[in-house]
Amino acid sequence: MPTLYMPASEKSKNLRSLAKIYAFFTKQNLKRSDTVHIYGGGIICDLAAYGVATFKRGCRLKLYPTTLLAMVDAAIGGKCAVNYQGIKNQIGTFYPAEEITIYPPFLQTLKPIELRQGKAEMLKCYFISDQLSDIDPSDPGIPDVTQILEYAKFKMDICAQDPHDIGIRRTLNFGHTIGHVLERLSGYRFKHGDSVIAGIRAAIGLSLKLGLIDSEVDELSRETLSSYPIPAAIDRFLSKLSIPDILSEARQDKKNSGSALKMVLPIGYRKVAIRDVSPTL
Amino acid sequence: MPTLYMPASEKSKNLRSLAKIYAFFTKQNLKRSDTVHIYGGGIICDLAAYGVATFKRGCRLKLYPTTLLAMVDAAIGGKCAVNYQGIKNQIGTFYPAEEITIYPPFLQTLKPIELRQGKAEMLKCYFISDQLSDIDPSDPGIPDVTQILEYAKFKMDICAQDPHDIGIRRTLNFGHTIGHVLERLSGYRFKHGDSVIAGIRAAIGLSLKLGLIDSEVDELSRETLSSYPIPAAIDRFLSKLSIPDILSEARQDKKNSGSALKMVLPIGYRKVAIRDVSPTL
Repeated sequence: MPTLYMPASEKSKNLRSLAKIYAFFTKQNLKRSDTVHIYGGGIICDLAAYGVATFKRGCRLKLYPTTLLAMVDAAIGGKCAVNYQGIKNQIGTFYPAEEITIYPPFLQTLKPIELRQGKAEMLKCYFISDQLSDIDPSDPGIPDVTQILEYAKFKMDICAQDPHDIGIRRTLNFGHTIGHVLERLSGYRFKHGDSVIAGIRAAIGLSLKLGLIDSEVDELSRETLSSYPIPAAIDRFLSKLSIPDILSEARQDKKNSGSALKMVLPIGYRKVAIRDVSPTL
Repeated sequence: MPTLYMPASEKSKNLRSLAKIYAFFTKQNLKRSDTVHIYGGGIICDLAAYGVATFKRGCRLKLYPTTLLAMVDAAIGGKCAVNYQGIKNQIGTFYPAEEITIYPPFLQTLKPIELRQGKAEMLKCYFISDQLSDIDPSDPGIPDVTQILEYAKFKMDICAQDPHDIGIRRTLNFGHTIGHVLERLSGYRFKHGDSVIAGIRAAIGLSLKLGLIDSEVDELSRETLSSYPIPAAIDRFLSKLSIPDILSEARQDKKNSGSALKMVLPIGYRKVAIRDVSPTL
């Protein structure tokens, strides 16, 4: 089968790589009714699926996520995109795969740091729903397949309820407002999952400050979060940022409109809601 | 209101122009909840709507078609795209505008040749449905607004039944298989509407040859078609093409899959059906 290999880096998840994909599809005379099989982590799934979505207005698409992050998050829900002018996923669309294959042996090829990024998204889900089974991000091992499927299905269910990300699906953005700011301001030096967990910790702090949670919930949440090893470099970087810097960057997020700054915030232990925080900051 | 002007030509309906649109949106800090208003003919509607569809995974979109072709055809049904490597609409998606404003005074700005391209698509619809009111493409005037809305609504209804172009909507492709071949092989020297009408004439001939219509229907169809002035240059060009050339090009059409060559063919007067013609040619 004709195969195209692409580098998997945020820097190359751009319109130029997309053009290479279009050239490959054209050379192969890809038809709408042909199926493209995509093997890779979140970056490759996002980039290549966007190519499939827009070539001839959409060909058939099957995804084979190879990282934990892609299995429980990136490959699910139809979002595909490329970065543009340093902004993540600025150009994209919604194009759900017709089939997603989760093959756990791929995970044995991952470095611990990559595995951890997937666990970060799982931990995020754990904070969104108290129906999910317990996880321990401090355990360096591979989660069992039952739990991977449980978490993948959790995201799938939310996306099915709100495919275009205008309602409940936005709760999946928990930790992502500040997480994206960290990624952008650091020039994507920090990993996505690590940044999201730092973002969740900041959101918990904000909720406490706004009186959305009491100190008991705050403490319980932080205890749960403490099992995740946030890199010290993120803490150092975060401590140097001013609040106005963070807010100005956060407003750039494509999920915001007008002057509002909407964030997903905890309103209890393992319970979140979307709040416009701009009047209070 | 910040405004971007773009040239309206098939040659510039490409990824480079799309990049200019993305740069403009980025400079304006366009939000998902912002509305982009697009004024133009089919090329501009296709190109700019594709930009709106994919910027931040889709912003709000309102279309103001300024040509007859765009009013009754291009602006309706959500198709948007750019050309790629000389192939029309090779990169695109489906993204219906939330509002389409038909303002007939725009038509007073059109040259007769441009007005005729819109009448070509109307005549195509006339051949697809015997429910549509009579038109006379030999009349150089502007159709009245009632008829423009009637034909626009006809297309809208078909697209609503089959938004992703996998069933009944394909009948709107009548005349387009050979029409697209003419456009491509001539390097887009011929106009789209004119090429489609020449394509319809060829399709009628093929139907007669295949026994899908009798000579009475053939004659009646040709009489209706004769009110449309096909440029002599198209006839000269067409007479020089060999059947294998035409078929080889037609198979490139993105609506075909595998070795099939599906065409919309008349099966009666003002009645069409989709047929796989590859076994018979």
